[in-house]
Amino acid sequence: MSEYRRNPLTGEWVILATKRAERPHKPGRGKKRRAAPDWVRQCPFCPGNERMTPPSILEVPAGPQGWRIRGFENKYPALEPQADLGQTDSPLLQKLGGKGSHEVVVETPLHNSFPASRTTDELELLLHAYRARYRANMDREDILYTVIFKNHGEQAGTSLEHPHSQIIATAVIPDGQRIRSELAEEYYAKTAGCLTCHVAAEEARLGTRVVCENDRFVAFNPFAAVRAAETWICPSEHMASFAESTDEQLASLADALLRTLKSLEKAFDGPDYNYIIHSAPKGSAQEYHHWYLQIMPHLERLAGFELGTGIYINAFAPEETAEMMRKSLP
Amino acid sequence: MSEYRRNPLTGEWVILATKRAERPHKPGRGKKRRAAPDWVRQCPFCPGNERMTPPSILEVPAGPQGWRIRGFENKYPALEPQADLGQTDSPLLQKLGGKGSHEVVVETPLHNSFPASRTTDELELLLHAYRARYRANMDREDILYTVIFKNHGEQAGTSLEHPHSQIIATAVIPDGQRIRSELAEEYYAKTAGCLTCHVAAEEARLGTRVVCENDRFVAFNPFAAVRAAETWICPSEHMASFAESTDEQLASLADALLRTLKSLEKAFDGPDYNYIIHSAPKGSAQEYHHWYLQIMPHLERLAGFELGTGIYINAFAPEETAEMMRKSLP
Repeated sequence: MSEYRRNPLTGEWVILATKRAERPHKPGRGKKRRAAPDWVRQCPFCPGNERMTPPSILEVPAGPQGWRIRGFENKYPALEPQADLGQTDSPLLQKLGGKGSHEVVVETPLHNSFPASRTTDELELLLHAYRARYRANMDREDILYTVIFKNHGEQAGTSLEHPHSQIIATAVIPDGQRIRSELAEEYYAKTAGCLTCHVAAEEARLGTRVVCENDRFVAFNPFAAVRAAETWICPSEHMASFAESTDEQLASLADALLRTLKSLEKAFDGPDYNYIIHSAPKGSAQEYHHWYLQIMPHLERLAGFELGTGIYINAFAPEETAEMMRKSLP
Repeated sequence: MSEYRRNPLTGEWVILATKRAERPHKPGRGKKRRAAPDWVRQCPFCPGNERMTPPSILEVPAGPQGWRIRGFENKYPALEPQADLGQTDSPLLQKLGGKGSHEVVVETPLHNSFPASRTTDELELLLHAYRARYRANMDREDILYTVIFKNHGEQAGTSLEHPHSQIIATAVIPDGQRIRSELAEEYYAKTAGCLTCHVAAEEARLGTRVVCENDRFVAFNPFAAVRAAETWICPSEHMASFAESTDEQLASLADALLRTLKSLEKAFDGPDYNYIIHSAPKGSAQEYHHWYLQIMPHLERLAGFELGTGIYINAFAPEETAEMMRKSLP
């Protein structure tokens, strides 16, 4: 028997249809990745090839001993800082100059070091780099929203193998974020509480969808997970923006993220995935926005129904996938 | 120079970033499909294998001479007619029984007859079958919305090669449709006109994004196309619901659809695609809803940014892709 579930934080509906898991055409588990070398001569992200990319805007550590993390502007940017804002066409056909920025963060000098194979310290350093670039982008005039994301594997849309993340800062607020803000505001008006705080606490209390927890974060497959093994890692403490995250939080997030990615890797044979850091738009109320990291594995393809309606069909109950992931924790 | 464009009908933003088309990693054109046989012994959708699926709810023509189109309930349905509606959990975690229906329409007895290779008459017959099942679904109690869609090729999410479409009827109205309704209502309140009528007329007048036209339809790449070569085929005459489409319209739509699919096939080497018929929800105002068919080719993968924000990045201007398609018309 299938059911509709609605994510209270995003307003998204999902159809949870576990009968579809019986299909002879099973959703793909991860494919064995071919073993890649740790350095590739023609890879623009490998050390020694820095001239193949725009100049560094971030190097960790700074100095001549060689970087462990490196940031720069995307060579083929979707948005650019100097674009002209404000031109419009007819009211029917609205456009704006593509003001914003599009950066790349190379996560490691090693071509073959995927996140689940790293140490907590390495992920912690990466989260520090994210926070530095997040703050720098949000400090720019005209920027209303910044999103940090990673595409891991071909199914997740990556075009270069060397592990890297991207940061896009926009002069418009995405509709999805606008809906999240409205739902949070509506809930706050009724309860004087933060919806995300309450949902994360409820998931932690129920436990059936929890993947792992530590002193500052809870990782869970949301009640209305739109895809198999979708996972959110939420700060337990109320905090609107990723910009304000503390060093202690980043250390705890590195721990929760690494354990979650390792469990995903083991439970589903290393699937492709995206992760995204969702954070409050500029100038938004601190009381009811709440940042979090979302992991979206690609175990099934999206099809015409999802594209046409925005409603997802998920054949795997989050209660089951969370249990599989718990059993696969390191 | 990139720009933001907003689709006035859907509210979606796209970042049109033509510089990204210069990347060394080009978006995939269609791959040569392996030549499939016209009948496959183990294919549940090939004639003679009807026992491998649920019983027919539609056969065209009816009678013993063999069907040309066949409809039945999906063996692994996302939704089911007899599901119980109405149970709810906590206000935080909302769910409903999965009431609805999920049907398959086998488009042709031939395993290898893809839409662009058919005749106008064959497509017209298929559109008649769509309309019959659309009406039957919308007539059911508890159904608020029905969507007809096709997944062509693996990138588009198909799991069975034999050409087929799907029809899903839901007891909830998708959020995307709700936003389209709101935008159309708002426009009607200001102008007493139908937004889709006005946009389609404006696109026809400007011509730069038009793929083809006939006496009853205009096919164009929308101003804010979210993906390369996205195409809408809109009835020129105002009409809210696909249920009311006339025989003359279906004949004209078959013509416009076939020419569009042939041009897409030729211009982009037969890419995978979805098409979706968007139509008014039950009980909605006739004055400002307007049905249309949307074709979404898969020339690039979606990645973390699109998943995380709902904003698309498109490296190909609709003015260019429409011109490529016009030059490839039969």
